[in-house]
Amino acid sequence: MRAGVTYAAGFRAAGVVAGLKPSGRPDLALLVGDAGTTAAGLFTTNRVAAAPVHLARSRLVAGCGTAVLVNSGQANAATGSRGDEDALTCTAEVASLLALAPEDVLPCSTGVIGEPVHMPELLAALPGLTEAVSPEGGESFAEAIMTTDTVAKSADADAGGYRVGGAAKGVGMISPNLATMLAFVTTDAAVARGDLATLAHAELRPRFNALTVDACMSTNDTVLLLASGAAGDDRVAPGESTWGALSEAIGAVADSLVSQLIHDAEGVTTVTLVRVEGAASDQDARTIAKAVADSPLVKTAVFGSDPNPGRILQAVGSSGVEVSPSLIDVWIGDVPVATGGVIPPAYFVAGGLRGSAETAIAGPEVTMRIRVGEGSGRSLVLGCDLSYDYVKINGEYTT
Amino acid sequence: MRAGVTYAAGFRAAGVVAGLKPSGRPDLALLVGDAGTTAAGLFTTNRVAAAPVHLARSRLVAGCGTAVLVNSGQANAATGSRGDEDALTCTAEVASLLALAPEDVLPCSTGVIGEPVHMPELLAALPGLTEAVSPEGGESFAEAIMTTDTVAKSADADAGGYRVGGAAKGVGMISPNLATMLAFVTTDAAVARGDLATLAHAELRPRFNALTVDACMSTNDTVLLLASGAAGDDRVAPGESTWGALSEAIGAVADSLVSQLIHDAEGVTTVTLVRVEGAASDQDARTIAKAVADSPLVKTAVFGSDPNPGRILQAVGSSGVEVSPSLIDVWIGDVPVATGGVIPPAYFVAGGLRGSAETAIAGPEVTMRIRVGEGSGRSLVLGCDLSYDYVKINGEYTT
Repeated sequence: MRAGVTYAAGFRAAGVVAGLKPSGRPDLALLVGDAGTTAAGLFTTNRVAAAPVHLARSRLVAGCGTAVLVNSGQANAATGSRGDEDALTCTAEVASLLALAPEDVLPCSTGVIGEPVHMPELLAALPGLTEAVSPEGGESFAEAIMTTDTVAKSADADAGGYRVGGAAKGVGMISPNLATMLAFVTTDAAVARGDLATLAHAELRPRFNALTVDACMSTNDTVLLLASGAAGDDRVAPGESTWGALSEAIGAVADSLVSQLIHDAEGVTTVTLVRVEGAASDQDARTIAKAVADSPLVKTAVFGSDPNPGRILQAVGSSGVEVSPSLIDVWIGDVPVATGGVIPPAYFVAGGLRGSAETAIAGPEVTMRIRVGEGSGRSLVLGCDLSYDYVKINGEYTT
Repeated sequence: MRAGVTYAAGFRAAGVVAGLKPSGRPDLALLVGDAGTTAAGLFTTNRVAAAPVHLARSRLVAGCGTAVLVNSGQANAATGSRGDEDALTCTAEVASLLALAPEDVLPCSTGVIGEPVHMPELLAALPGLTEAVSPEGGESFAEAIMTTDTVAKSADADAGGYRVGGAAKGVGMISPNLATMLAFVTTDAAVARGDLATLAHAELRPRFNALTVDACMSTNDTVLLLASGAAGDDRVAPGESTWGALSEAIGAVADSLVSQLIHDAEGVTTVTLVRVEGAASDQDARTIAKAVADSPLVKTAVFGSDPNPGRILQAVGSSGVEVSPSLIDVWIGDVPVATGGVIPPAYFVAGGLRGSAETAIAGPEVTMRIRVGEGSGRSLVLGCDLSYDYVKINGEYTT
């Protein structure tokens, strides 16, 4: 287990059992940055966004945010004005205990949509939680934000003299009833708020947006990037020699968290890397890659270790992007399963291409490479198969 | 079993075993209209469309089409120029045997994508097939077009002095490896080609487009409407007293076929009717309804008889349509599970609303009604749940 969000200096964290989840597992977490910590965030674009998403976003816009309070158990989404009040109340209480302004505490929630937050239990646990935060608390923070995750997810990286750490939860882009992907990345570099937002958009957004478990966008997805400046007062900014190394380290932490998320996707047996190239734009490439990664027919074929190039072509053709079938080449692993839009007849002959493709698709990870033309647009999307366990987790698990 | 495509006078049909499918079940079908039959068609918009789709569409555009040759087993998609030649060859051979112009024969294929059509077997079966067509052949036609369908699908309706019949196959919008939804509707009314196209767009398109099994658009989807004129020479046209009755009968046949298709969807245990109203436009309503019907989280919840209103709100909010959360009301059956965007707290109390919603969602059919505002846009989409059997059929079945 890595230190995660407390790997970088200037951050303290903790996680406790507040009794919000029936399971009795840790369900309330707090991350506190030193005075002067700057913050940037990325949020779900779901129009039915949760109360804490609205509040955290508005506080970031106002330039605030040095601490983060996270509860699991209830998502505080579809809870109306009561949900807004609950988010205000619990962050105000944390601020009071930490002697911060209320606006400096950013709320995050994950859990059942619609169910009101269990406020009495949450409020009763706050004094203990604020006392428990420590520079060694990253591990307990990562555990307390979990819902249906099977393992806690942390990462760290070094950037010259700076450290970057992070934690995430969410068994895919969305975890089922317990709707949320949450991620927190911290650094001890000093970064101005605007530059931090630049880093979040350049290094975090594309990486987390490349994830798809089930094409379902959560009501609570939140990615926060916090910089404490504890490593020194010299600001890291574009044009400085330190900027590149810090960007890379933030990217490396995000890569690790994203990989941990997709490998813990609900019911996953095989992770699918869909690489599209030759599109007219990166956006076109992304649309095609998502169409393939999200196709139930492709996902079940991967589960069954059936290479099935026809299903990949079907998904490419129905993505909505203008493509010329005769320009489409597809590889599963290194095996060419469609060339110029045609599946080689040899594919259907016993012992030929198909056997090689079956070997390529059977494993913990498979790459599908799709070339759709001569354009410069490219994209990578990380998906997974659709297994009996996905149906079981989401069909039999009731809130 | 109904007469289906031969219920209307002026049509003969048959289905035979050509040996295209390993199962040895009927796999080649022919529908022949009397001289003077007019035809209209609707086709997949998948950019990777099959060879027979391209050929049938071009022949309809040229004003041709009195006979339809359908093979199951191979979809003749992603087969390149060889596929085009195969479609030309087999329709030319049928035309020769029936003394028609080659352009008058419309090809349809359904089955494995990429695998070349087994032409020697197909060509050898054509003389027997063309001899077998009869006014009593509707039943064998409907059987020979099946792939993973578990039952043959036919329908009929009367329109004053006219008859309308139809047949369809496809275990949902798309059936898996065996990619295709095919539907054929016939009438003995005399309808000019342009008016028939109007009827196809007004009465058939919205009904078949309302179907979704797995959000996957086939490479081969085809709906053909044929009018023999055998009931009399008086043309049925807009403005004539007969137009309304004929429109209604065509709609009734389509309704029946669509219902038969969704109730035979792969792995279905519960059919979901998603009704959206109050949207800014019908298109917006349709986008929202499809987002809900296609959501893997909603589909698995239906499979598990878990009403889970949060998942419905999540899907509405992420559909891409501008909605105001506070205007969203949701009912499962008659049970209000979200009002003004808020799930009533009473829902989470034992024995309350949730019990009623669980009763409403457990059954062969459930209606989800979603009001998103005061607009006049509305839509109905027919979907189904996502079960273990869907994963099994598509994961374990290999081409």
